[in-house]
Amino acid sequence: MEYRIEKDTMGEVKVPADALYGAQTQRSIDNFKIAADINRMPKEIIKAFAYLKKAAAITNAKAKVLPKKKSDLIGKVCNEILEGKLDDSFPLVVWQTGSGTQSNMNVNEVIAYRGHVLNGGQLTDKEKALHPNDDVNKSQSSNDTFPTAMHIAAYKILVEVTIPGIEKLRDTLQKKSKQFMKVVKIGRTHFMDATPLTLGQELSGYVSQLNHGLKAIKNTLPHLSELALGGTAVGTGINTPPDYAKNVAAEIAKLTKLPFKTAENKFEALAAHDAIVESHGALKTVAVSLMKIANDIRMLSSGPRSGIGELFIPDNEPGSSIMPGKVNPTQCEALTMIAAQVLGNDVAINIGGATGHFELNVFKPVMIYNFLHSARLIGDGCVSFNDKCAVGLKPIEENIKKHLDNSLMLVTALNTKIGYYKAAEIAQKAHKENTTLKAMAVKLGYLTEKEFDEWVVPAKMVGKI
Amino acid sequence: MEYRIEKDTMGEVKVPADALYGAQTQRSIDNFKIAADINRMPKEIIKAFAYLKKAAAITNAKAKVLPKKKSDLIGKVCNEILEGKLDDSFPLVVWQTGSGTQSNMNVNEVIAYRGHVLNGGQLTDKEKALHPNDDVNKSQSSNDTFPTAMHIAAYKILVEVTIPGIEKLRDTLQKKSKQFMKVVKIGRTHFMDATPLTLGQELSGYVSQLNHGLKAIKNTLPHLSELALGGTAVGTGINTPPDYAKNVAAEIAKLTKLPFKTAENKFEALAAHDAIVESHGALKTVAVSLMKIANDIRMLSSGPRSGIGELFIPDNEPGSSIMPGKVNPTQCEALTMIAAQVLGNDVAINIGGATGHFELNVFKPVMIYNFLHSARLIGDGCVSFNDKCAVGLKPIEENIKKHLDNSLMLVTALNTKIGYYKAAEIAQKAHKENTTLKAMAVKLGYLTEKEFDEWVVPAKMVGKI
Amino acid sequence: MEYRIEKDTMGEVKVPADALYGAQTQRSIDNFKIAADINRMPKEIIKAFAYLKKAAAITNAKAKVLPKKKSDLIGKVCNEILEGKLDDSFPLVVWQTGSGTQSNMNVNEVIAYRGHVLNGGQLTDKEKALHPNDDVNKSQSSNDTFPTAMHIAAYKILVEVTIPGIEKLRDTLQKKSKQFMKVVKIGRTHFMDATPLTLGQELSGYVSQLNHGLKAIKNTLPHLSELALGGTAVGTGINTPPDYAKNVAAEIAKLTKLPFKTAENKFEALAAHDAIVESHGALKTVAVSLMKIANDIRMLSSGPRSGIGELFIPDNEPGSSIMPGKVNPTQCEALTMIAAQVLGNDVAINIGGATGHFELNVFKPVMIYNFLHSARLIGDGCVSFNDKCAVGLKPIEENIKKHLDNSLMLVTALNTKIGYYKAAEIAQKAHKENTTLKAMAVKLGYLTEKEFDEWVVPAKMVGKI
Amino acid sequence: MEYRIEKDTMGEVKVPADALYGAQTQRSIDNFKIAADINRMPKEIIKAFAYLKKAAAITNAKAKVLPKKKSDLIGKVCNEILEGKLDDSFPLVVWQTGSGTQSNMNVNEVIAYRGHVLNGGQLTDKEKALHPNDDVNKSQSSNDTFPTAMHIAAYKILVEVTIPGIEKLRDTLQKKSKQFMKVVKIGRTHFMDATPLTLGQELSGYVSQLNHGLKAIKNTLPHLSELALGGTAVGTGINTPPDYAKNVAAEIAKLTKLPFKTAENKFEALAAHDAIVESHGALKTVAVSLMKIANDIRMLSSGPRSGIGELFIPDNEPGSSIMPGKVNPTQCEALTMIAAQVLGNDVAINIGGATGHFELNVFKPVMIYNFLHSARLIGDGCVSFNDKCAVGLKPIEENIKKHLDNSLMLVTALNTKIGYYKAAEIAQKAHKENTTLKAMAVKLGYLTEKEFDEWVVPAKMVGKI
Repeated sequence: MEYRIEKDTMGEVKVPADALYGAQTQRSIDNFKIAADINRMPKEIIKAFAYLKKAAAITNAKAKVLPKKKSDLIGKVCNEILEGKLDDSFPLVVWQTGSGTQSNMNVNEVIAYRGHVLNGGQLTDKEKALHPNDDVNKSQSSNDTFPTAMHIAAYKILVEVTIPGIEKLRDTLQKKSKQFMKVVKIGRTHFMDATPLTLGQELSGYVSQLNHGLKAIKNTLPHLSELALGGTAVGTGINTPPDYAKNVAAEIAKLTKLPFKTAENKFEALAAHDAIVESHGALKTVAVSLMKIANDIRMLSSGPRSGIGELFIPDNEPGSSIMPGKVNPTQCEALTMIAAQVLGNDVAINIGGATGHFELNVFKPVMIYNFLHSARLIGDGCVSFNDKCAVGLKPIEENIKKHLDNSLMLVTALNTKIGYYKAAEIAQKAHKENTTLKAMAVKLGYLTEKEFDEWVVPAKMVGKI
Repeated sequence: MEYRIEKDTMGEVKVPADALYGAQTQRSIDNFKIAADINRMPKEIIKAFAYLKKAAAITNAKAKVLPKKKSDLIGKVCNEILEGKLDDSFPLVVWQTGSGTQSNMNVNEVIAYRGHVLNGGQLTDKEKALHPNDDVNKSQSSNDTFPTAMHIAAYKILVEVTIPGIEKLRDTLQKKSKQFMKVVKIGRTHFMDATPLTLGQELSGYVSQLNHGLKAIKNTLPHLSELALGGTAVGTGINTPPDYAKNVAAEIAKLTKLPFKTAENKFEALAAHDAIVESHGALKTVAVSLMKIANDIRMLSSGPRSGIGELFIPDNEPGSSIMPGKVNPTQCEALTMIAAQVLGNDVAINIGGATGHFELNVFKPVMIYNFLHSARLIGDGCVSFNDKCAVGLKPIEENIKKHLDNSLMLVTALNTKIGYYKAAEIAQKAHKENTTLKAMAVKLGYLTEKEFDEWVVPAKMVGKI
Repeated sequence: MEYRIEKDTMGEVKVPADALYGAQTQRSIDNFKIAADINRMPKEIIKAFAYLKKAAAITNAKAKVLPKKKSDLIGKVCNEILEGKLDDSFPLVVWQTGSGTQSNMNVNEVIAYRGHVLNGGQLTDKEKALHPNDDVNKSQSSNDTFPTAMHIAAYKILVEVTIPGIEKLRDTLQKKSKQFMKVVKIGRTHFMDATPLTLGQELSGYVSQLNHGLKAIKNTLPHLSELALGGTAVGTGINTPPDYAKNVAAEIAKLTKLPFKTAENKFEALAAHDAIVESHGALKTVAVSLMKIANDIRMLSSGPRSGIGELFIPDNEPGSSIMPGKVNPTQCEALTMIAAQVLGNDVAINIGGATGHFELNVFKPVMIYNFLHSARLIGDGCVSFNDKCAVGLKPIEENIKKHLDNSLMLVTALNTKIGYYKAAEIAQKAHKENTTLKAMAVKLGYLTEKEFDEWVVPAKMVGKI
Repeated sequence: MEYRIEKDTMGEVKVPADALYGAQTQRSIDNFKIAADINRMPKEIIKAFAYLKKAAAITNAKAKVLPKKKSDLIGKVCNEILEGKLDDSFPLVVWQTGSGTQSNMNVNEVIAYRGHVLNGGQLTDKEKALHPNDDVNKSQSSNDTFPTAMHIAAYKILVEVTIPGIEKLRDTLQKKSKQFMKVVKIGRTHFMDATPLTLGQELSGYVSQLNHGLKAIKNTLPHLSELALGGTAVGTGINTPPDYAKNVAAEIAKLTKLPFKTAENKFEALAAHDAIVESHGALKTVAVSLMKIANDIRMLSSGPRSGIGELFIPDNEPGSSIMPGKVNPTQCEALTMIAAQVLGNDVAINIGGATGHFELNVFKPVMIYNFLHSARLIGDGCVSFNDKCAVGLKPIEENIKKHLDNSLMLVTALNTKIGYYKAAEIAQKAHKENTTLKAMAVKLGYLTEKEFDEWVVPAKMVGKI
């Protein structure tokens, strides 16, 4: 491979001849050979940086601290980054400095050098059209850019991937809930037979869970909308022009079309990432909901002959390499694995969030890596589960009817007629003698056949529907 | 010990002669000998049950399904429970049935039997003035009472203990922040010297964290305000009179003076406890904040001679059994241990929340046990930390000044004057030659002594205060 | 209440007149009002302190740095502590200084003052027969005593409660496994019908899990057997007589009859508690096993009429306050809640363990609190589950037979005869047309009735038993 | 793109014309569009599959159930997989069926089709030289192959990456510990000044932690060495030739040169992955150790002027994009982020491990994904930390001396001379009056200057070194 020599404040470094990045990116590649093939800094962060670098350039130009021409050049490269044209220029890994300084410098270098090239220059020119620190990073520090990128990336993925994914699944479940609202079936508590409800009611619980989860996520957006940019090195805003923080946030809001604003307190915004912790707290709540929903569906669809078998789920693929003809609830499995992952990611985020010190939290990359992972998994997972499983849900009426007819817990309807104790006696004896509730109720003389038929009617036991 | 014989639907059981509880409580004592000395069902749950049982009795009486006299009697015993007079009558442990049925029955039995005694009866009477199931539990199931008690207990502890505790600490830190707003000191990022800020600014970050945390907690209150009561066995409301769910929630709101309302979807309310998961997600966010704050304070107060030593904390007790005269940041230690506990509790709650099945989540006791633990620890911990540490915080001006004067990072002020690269050269050489920034700046010929004195002024580097 | 005045190096403190403790204990009571009613320092730690204080006194006496008479007096009080006679004298909470200094001083004070009383003195005497620091704490520091008490308490509870509890359950499951080794039943993978196995084989998996878990716990005992005592303040052993560390460990081994030895590296022993983290890693592995086992058992016993219903579990109590005659798998629920708790405790321990600094980890109390909690819950939980559930397990032959006969996955036996694809066709078509495998196999012409009967024999599909 | 038509038991599927995989792989691509760009099934699993498929083929051939020619062909393709030649043929993601069936089939298909091509055939041939199920998967099921691949991959990465990485760091720290064994410095407990120790002693604690951690990992290898292969569908070994399980394990041991053996109990081996949980319990213990070590090092190296500054760490890169000349402990930051990640991964693994049901755990992919992630991060992270930080550690003697000389805790040496109380008085008054211990000791008249100089000698306070 051919190389060129790049310089930073520490001296010279060899970089690949055609690399758009410079010395500091190369140092990071050399210094952090950790899981490099699987843990690159997430692309969402790189794109968020593109938004903020462009916004900063515009704001700097307006404040007359950066020539308009330089600002335009920066903006052009940022557009290329947003279009995905420069993806290969961001090779750094998550496991670098905890402030993300190296990724900030990676972006600064790529913008400066690619800008220089766009401007007609060559990578080997000693003086370039843009300086990574003095121009691209103007009025900025890693300490305020990286957390700003974190919030932009987190907010965007939530509204673009996570929330729409959950909503899609919620809508399907809601439709199914209405559709099956009159399918009376046995309820189950403690895995044991209980009083009846309808399949639509059962599904309505899932809908309600997801609606609450969506609300929980949305409750966390305001904190995420607060941007650190303008705090620079330690939150005081050193080296920024007047009103910079407010203006740059407005610029970012304009570019992203999302309601970002400057954080009221920059000291928190650099030293703590409670907004990430809080928002992931909502994601883990949704993970908990999804685990419940997916577990129910796989258990309700268990069988085909020796399980519960009340719910049909689509057959998407052969289920076994050894058992011919087997079909499995694979979408449920993917979704519950995702839930487990999100609950693990939550702990990594908590520990990272708790371990900032003084003016800076240096667990930024690990926090946003896990956040984006969870947000993506939930969003993608809900869509997959929706498209390949939820849309095809159907009741298996035959089994539903069989289970309902056999249930001993229909006896509960008698509590208000003959009291809990006599009702219990009927159920226990019917169970022991393997007979029906009605037969036992009459045999014990607690009510007549007619009364039983009038009082014990599953369809009347499900409340208003 | 003397015993009497009690009966339930399964047969006879011996209970202590003077116990106010009956057969089912005794069965639970016998069947669940698990950590009985340390893990009783939290008293907050028992009190929450007292509210709901009273409210249910009133609502039942209004609906004419329970005689007014019985309702009054139930109310009387509930008052005794709320006054703490019957604490010994609730011996059951957390590790029982996952629906909390046994604690519900414990409450039902105690109310029925104590009511009977208040009514002039004797514990040995075969017929009693109140029946645990048919009267006290009327229009109820464990499946809707226990989650209702969970929400009442959780909501109450948050507004009575947790939030006031956090607010108390927040207020003190805010006051201190204002008081120290002009104490200019060195900033630290990556544990390394950085540009200056004021001590008041530093503390303002903590205030902002706690304010966001308070908001996060409050965001979760609406979900907690939804009560399951009226759903009975599986969410359908079987065996309840018309409008019962709405009315009983209004009654609970009245008794507790808190804005409880009936859950829109009872199927979720029994089968999932996402409100607990979500709300504890806010508590863990606060734990993360407290860990940061307490860590900062103990590190800033480290020394007295070989640490950072910029912050004075009160000496509350001798710190060492072997090192005479030692004083330690013990309140910080208690608070960070609490944070660790809350982060652990969060995982237990997540797993419990994720593992409900069909119409019922049967991890109710473990979920509320951990929730109440965290809520209590944060509330008590903040008050203790406030009273014994935060109120006594004072800057140690001598050390603050020394650190500030020595800082090499004041060089940052020169970026906009001479560029990042030359500024770096000054700092690096001053460090290497162990001299001051000014001396090196002048020696390198990048600026005059006068310029240095004009440009590098810590008090001007902290922004607007 | 009446008081007397006690003094420590910081001055005077009022303590209850008859309290056996002194100034430092009282300061801790006053300074740490955190969850005081529910989180006392675990009694296992107090007893572990009694062993070590006695051992230290004996060792000091042998080394001629403490008069024999004082040593004997200390030993006497330690015996009283071990007998549980002084339980009320240890009121401190978990949430205190992170070194446990205050509990060490609590023990020192109680031994000194109770010793003085045993010696004929009075609590109000200014000079006492024993000095808390100079005599009882001689050759010790909180920094080495508390971790020593942690290891003693942890080791003891594992061998006395946790391991025997697991073994008891393991033995029962092993017995049941042998007993049911020939009960052929349907297997289930992905919750779906699979090829057959025997109930005894199914249970043998649980036995194997518990055996591996026991081995995992035992693998961690050697690290727990290493004692910090002798390291004193920072691990250097300052203020200890020659060979003290080795001798005092031997003395503790003798008193506890457990193979304790002095830690090879005292710096680790004070500054990190990886032994606790490692050992709890084994406990969480067992929690994971127990969750699996208890879940299987509750699902296999689900019904009675609309579930899987292949396993009978004992009816221990009425299961529902509203559904008469209902019986629930309550022991499974307690055990799975315990598993969730242990997995949460693990995280608290990890965070505590990771957050020691320099020469001392100051998350000691929270670490051992969670460890002892888990160890106790697993021990007690296994015994409860064993006695009230496992011993009563019985196959429900009727359902087992029905499920087995219906299974489509018996077709797997045909793979080696007619190939996977044709076998799949048989299963899929039998499922679609709701007929038997045999009927479909013959209809498709892939084999004769006789071949089917010869090749598809469930009892031959379970391997060697 | 051009396509060809492939078939499985469910019908026809379009696959890219030159893809080496078939219908089932393509179905999985279509059905699981979840984080596809970042979460491919780990390459370590694919390679582990290559070992086991080859071993199975050899064993099948020896058992005469597979022609030698087919076995050889399978082996050839497996070699290509091991050489990394077919990496692009394994596009499936982690978030698929929980049994990993689709990845097993992906491997089966690639081996069959690539084998056919190697044999001179074409991908479009209807009949191929090898059948994915009947030949490549012979005597196997996903249910036993995937867990076998998990154990092979886990064991290999531990011995090839994780353990050597830790050992490398351990060796460096050990060398440094010896080198600095006589550098007397102040100790710190609770972040506060304490009695002295040497820098070598301090580092020896880290060495001891890592040694214990290595032992903990090695303790878990035997459980990992047990292979599920031979259990096939549910653990009974259906459709395997005699002695297959034992023989195939021996073959795998031979190919991998690692001591694999057949699992004694196959039911556990399919239905639970406690070995993974247990072994990751050791990894999280190491993560806890690394967090402590990296934190200590960054705090000891804090400064350069306003921190502790006792330890020099190498300057690897410019530390700040805004603060010129700043150097940060970036390797410490990467390592502590890794520790946070591992602690999060642990929770995901625990939940996955706890949630298997009946004869199969279907959280296999998420479990091994997290395991391999942690093992890799620890291994790579230790090497990076070693090479770029630990090897360059040096004491900063000037600061060490200054801190030591100032310390008030040297007073501890006087406990045995004048008692704890008088010693405390000296320290407290010296602190208050900002003077030296010696001056105050003499002033208070508790000892002479000569006695002080004789008794208070830091170098004598560090024990045997």
